[in-house]
Amino acid sequence: MSIVYTNPPRTAPEIVVCFTDLGVATVHEAQGRIGLMQPYMRPIYTGARAVGTAVTVSLAPADNWMLHVVVEQCQPGDIVIAAPTSFSDAGYFGELLATSLAARGVRGLVLEGGCRDVADLARMGFPVWSRAVSAQGTVKGTLGSINVPLVCAGQLVHPGALILADDDGVVVVARERAEAVLAASRAREEKEAKVRARLKGGEMGLDIYGMRDAVAQKGLTYRRYGT
Amino acid sequence: MSIVYTNPPRTAPEIVVCFTDLGVATVHEAQGRIGLMQPYMRPIYTGARAVGTAVTVSLAPADNWMLHVVVEQCQPGDIVIAAPTSFSDAGYFGELLATSLAARGVRGLVLEGGCRDVADLARMGFPVWSRAVSAQGTVKGTLGSINVPLVCAGQLVHPGALILADDDGVVVVARERAEAVLAASRAREEKEAKVRARLKGGEMGLDIYGMRDAVAQKGLTYRRYGT
Amino acid sequence: MSIVYTNPPRTAPEIVVCFTDLGVATVHEAQGRIGLMQPYMRPIYTGARAVGTAVTVSLAPADNWMLHVVVEQCQPGDIVIAAPTSFSDAGYFGELLATSLAARGVRGLVLEGGCRDVADLARMGFPVWSRAVSAQGTVKGTLGSINVPLVCAGQLVHPGALILADDDGVVVVARERAEAVLAASRAREEKEAKVRARLKGGEMGLDIYGMRDAVAQKGLTYRRYGT
Amino acid sequence: MSIVYTNPPRTAPEIVVCFTDLGVATVHEAQGRIGLMQPYMRPIYTGARAVGTAVTVSLAPADNWMLHVVVEQCQPGDIVIAAPTSFSDAGYFGELLATSLAARGVRGLVLEGGCRDVADLARMGFPVWSRAVSAQGTVKGTLGSINVPLVCAGQLVHPGALILADDDGVVVVARERAEAVLAASRAREEKEAKVRARLKGGEMGLDIYGMRDAVAQKGLTYRRYGT
Amino acid sequence: MSIVYTNPPRTAPEIVVCFTDLGVATVHEAQGRIGLMQPYMRPIYTGARAVGTAVTVSLAPADNWMLHVVVEQCQPGDIVIAAPTSFSDAGYFGELLATSLAARGVRGLVLEGGCRDVADLARMGFPVWSRAVSAQGTVKGTLGSINVPLVCAGQLVHPGALILADDDGVVVVARERAEAVLAASRAREEKEAKVRARLKGGEMGLDIYGMRDAVAQKGLTYRRYGT
Amino acid sequence: MSIVYTNPPRTAPEIVVCFTDLGVATVHEAQGRIGLMQPYMRPIYTGARAVGTAVTVSLAPADNWMLHVVVEQCQPGDIVIAAPTSFSDAGYFGELLATSLAARGVRGLVLEGGCRDVADLARMGFPVWSRAVSAQGTVKGTLGSINVPLVCAGQLVHPGALILADDDGVVVVARERAEAVLAASRAREEKEAKVRARLKGGEMGLDIYGMRDAVAQKGLTYRRYGT
Repeated sequence: MSIVYTNPPRTAPEIVVCFTDLGVATVHEAQGRIGLMQPYMRPIYTGARAVGTAVTVSLAPADNWMLHVVVEQCQPGDIVIAAPTSFSDAGYFGELLATSLAARGVRGLVLEGGCRDVADLARMGFPVWSRAVSAQGTVKGTLGSINVPLVCAGQLVHPGALILADDDGVVVVARERAEAVLAASRAREEKEAKVRARLKGGEMGLDIYGMRDAVAQKGLTYRRYGT
Repeated sequence: MSIVYTNPPRTAPEIVVCFTDLGVATVHEAQGRIGLMQPYMRPIYTGARAVGTAVTVSLAPADNWMLHVVVEQCQPGDIVIAAPTSFSDAGYFGELLATSLAARGVRGLVLEGGCRDVADLARMGFPVWSRAVSAQGTVKGTLGSINVPLVCAGQLVHPGALILADDDGVVVVARERAEAVLAASRAREEKEAKVRARLKGGEMGLDIYGMRDAVAQKGLTYRRYGT
Repeated sequence: MSIVYTNPPRTAPEIVVCFTDLGVATVHEAQGRIGLMQPYMRPIYTGARAVGTAVTVSLAPADNWMLHVVVEQCQPGDIVIAAPTSFSDAGYFGELLATSLAARGVRGLVLEGGCRDVADLARMGFPVWSRAVSAQGTVKGTLGSINVPLVCAGQLVHPGALILADDDGVVVVARERAEAVLAASRAREEKEAKVRARLKGGEMGLDIYGMRDAVAQKGLTYRRYGT
Repeated sequence: MSIVYTNPPRTAPEIVVCFTDLGVATVHEAQGRIGLMQPYMRPIYTGARAVGTAVTVSLAPADNWMLHVVVEQCQPGDIVIAAPTSFSDAGYFGELLATSLAARGVRGLVLEGGCRDVADLARMGFPVWSRAVSAQGTVKGTLGSINVPLVCAGQLVHPGALILADDDGVVVVARERAEAVLAASRAREEKEAKVRARLKGGEMGLDIYGMRDAVAQKGLTYRRYGT
Repeated sequence: MSIVYTNPPRTAPEIVVCFTDLGVATVHEAQGRIGLMQPYMRPIYTGARAVGTAVTVSLAPADNWMLHVVVEQCQPGDIVIAAPTSFSDAGYFGELLATSLAARGVRGLVLEGGCRDVADLARMGFPVWSRAVSAQGTVKGTLGSINVPLVCAGQLVHPGALILADDDGVVVVARERAEAVLAASRAREEKEAKVRARLKGGEMGLDIYGMRDAVAQKGLTYRRYGT
Repeated sequence: MSIVYTNPPRTAPEIVVCFTDLGVATVHEAQGRIGLMQPYMRPIYTGARAVGTAVTVSLAPADNWMLHVVVEQCQPGDIVIAAPTSFSDAGYFGELLATSLAARGVRGLVLEGGCRDVADLARMGFPVWSRAVSAQGTVKGTLGSINVPLVCAGQLVHPGALILADDDGVVVVARERAEAVLAASRAREEKEAKVRARLKGGEMGLDIYGMRDAVAQKGLTYRRYGT
């Protein structure tokens, strides 16, 4: 059955906005190393970055019909997460659909499939993370569903979840945990800022993190090369 | 037998020039979704773009001898399409060969293999679409053929065919069909320009393309999330 | 047994500096087509380039503990070569470790694994060549070894070897051979400069390299297309 | 947090047993083409086949500690579904663990990772579906969780779900739907048996499925070759 | 346009039958190392082997409608060669279609896509060479064409061509060249039989092929290990 | 320079023979998890197994000349380890070369490349571990070297090393360590035999290995599902 769930609860915008300066790696660590999509999910241009709330789209393979349907379900601040039910790297998404999503205030797309018009999308500044780049078109013959739980690049995504994507990849934060993950991420950032300053000054992690005892206990031996 | 066919009929330059502003995705759609090379064929630098007429080169694997031979067969406006008879991703092509092709007015290279000196090629603005980047050299020991029909990245390419390549990939247009494909591509562009303007204004494809009836007929159900 | 060999003999800095303007492809050719890492080893940003002396690190899979330990073993002008004992593309390396290595004068990293914080690393200008980009963190639970001979991307690397890396890939030059390879590379560069000038002037490799006799002897046939 | 959920509700054994003669392709079709794991999940020997109830195990990458812990949570008729939180194709599972699982009545393993001792496992008749074969060992350093919802090869698996695996791959059937899927699968089998008999008799699907009108309406043209 | 070309001229059966005992590697060599499909085209079971005449089918991606249509176009001794216009490894073919093709006397299938019911197909002895095994079903929504020239696994296949497939892969022999290739293959077989007998007797290829002079001329040096 | 080193010291036959019943996974563990080739190195038929001493061959890409030269350097009990200097998966090895190696008493081949005639090789019982199966032929135009240290599938192999290969992959044991590794492997086997007996009797690794305390200390929580 094909179904569109409308208006799922979304992560609160005042929380989402606080993730603006955080990196994917930091947030992934801060939430206990969960929620990271597989590394084949790559931005179509260098420096792409987006944070927003998930609207999920389940597609038929090589069929982008539901990407037209999803536009209406989007609000400013959303990021569309789309995956076909069977793997096909056809080019589901291009400049026209991006124009339509941008007009709705959508901040980006994460796509388990191929993307086309990538030069146009880079010019527009509409970021896409995808498995592939492909000019191969798709059909509009089979429906899918919107705002259902969706597995995309190895992660389960619920509608309304917070999505953060940058050059390192894409991380999913559950709506219920977003505030806690934000706090943990900030704490991590602060700690890292202090460590960074000391590393710049020439101190080493071996000393800052107190690793010398640990490596000695595990039996690390230092020996002059050639002896 | 190794053979060089000289002076194959080429797509007329006055037609080729009209493809200058068209995208690979558009032309591929306009000619009925045929002629697109497989998506592993990627430009070596972002923003690469070329349109021209095919000169085909069949190479021995890990042997770039025929790339030296093909220079003489090229005219201004050509694009070289090269593929080894057996797959090998060695680095068949670099800056010296590019200098020579550029001196002949060649506009680019599509290579079923590896390319090297990519920083130099980007500086020169000589675009290459290839399977791989590799500094591994090749030998000059076995001949091949020039201007024979060639399978490259899953597409059959005849010499003289129109080749269009950009960030989305590479599309092949048969010489005999180039004029008709041009007309179809322009019609598509004009139609898309109108749709783009409406999408920017906030209209949705669901309405522009009249999809509401179709999705209803197929049984798409809208339901408030959580109910 | 986990062991850190300290102060291996390194390729002399006055030799290393002379490789600054040479390309990976040229050096690889000049030393007889050996020492080139497999082509999956790619820079995390376009235009990355580094030359220096190898400090090798053998890691446990998905464990970056030894990357903290190696900092202390590095001198200005070093390049770290790191590989896990079992393949895992987790994200072993990010901006904090790069800050620490940069503070020691390290020029880059070659990593048989995943790298994260790639936007930060590009901003810092700290070049990394890696198999993958991944935000997935690693643990610090198992020791490895430093300055042992290491297989990385298909090449055996001894500590102190000269490493040259650019957009084309990574090449390893044995310390004992570095001076000879430098001479051979320069000779090659000079010869190529002369050929380049002639190619720009419109001469063809067929004539410059005297290939016409060779292709004729091998039986290459020229025939007018369509006849 | 690492947690072991004990005694999840399982699909009823009297339903599971009825799937014994059904194929993965049939069940996947019958439940509406959902639940199929990605095709890289392959049996380690030809003819492998298993049906049972899922016990899920979330592992640390390259760490098989929880595979030892899970043994105690298994009942006769279970199939273990195991995936690391980060992709690593080390060899998590071999003959000793299989001996232990077999002693508990476990019917097989589906593993997002590498398997070893495959000749021994084939001899024992203990079927494993895995991404890879690898003799590389793992450590026992980091805990994971048992009987949590788990994404394995692109499918979300809940503990207690019905798992059916054969040479074609692995399909997951939700516990709540197992009875309905069984009925649909049987109906499909019966229908296919009738069609098979007619196809063997020389009738064609074109006629049996009444496709002649459909292809004519879509405009399929028949033309004598060469005319 | 979708078109079915009927009754293409086929390689004569009295020639086809003579290829029964020849291997793919031998025929590929004998026809001058052309016509070999890419090595990802693998048999679904060990020991699969087929020789026959090509009936080609161009499919829409993830759509197997034309595999139903092609049955009627097949004669005893044919091998179906099928490829989608865009790459999709869904499961296009299974036991029911095989039953139908077998009833028409078809000897096998070469499929640029996924195959399912592989245990059933092995039992039936219906050989398939495919890119993938997948239980994922396909739709019947878009037509394609039959007996058009088709690129499959990197080779151009004309209807009526001779197809030979075994554990080593798939080779295509043009209808017009089949008789000449047969003669060349037999000559090669006879020569190899003589060489084989001598090799079994302990003679070495170095002597049989007279390679000692060639390696010496190229400068091969023999040196006692350790000196 | 191309060089053949003759008569390298080999692991003693009385040690080699003792590895006959050991598995690759066991030996790899016993020598401290080193020496395992990458898992893409797979046997061409199920049940393949070989143990012997390495004769190494460095090949030019897509050139199998040195495989003819190596025959003469082989003694009964050897295993040939061959890798091209640049990656090419052409079919370097087939039934004729196997006949010649078998006549010299060679026990198998490990090949960083493609193998052909695999049905014949299976019939002969001549085991090959390779990256690929390919019927594509190679040339005999460029020399290589024999009994030089060689990187194959990620492992450095010295001539005379002990090679053990089975369905799990290929492991390399240094000649100097072979006796110690044998002792460690046997100790491991004995220990595993005792564990196996207890596991068969229904005891669990949790108890046998005394893991209960460790998991408790790390904080593993058991909770009834649904609470």
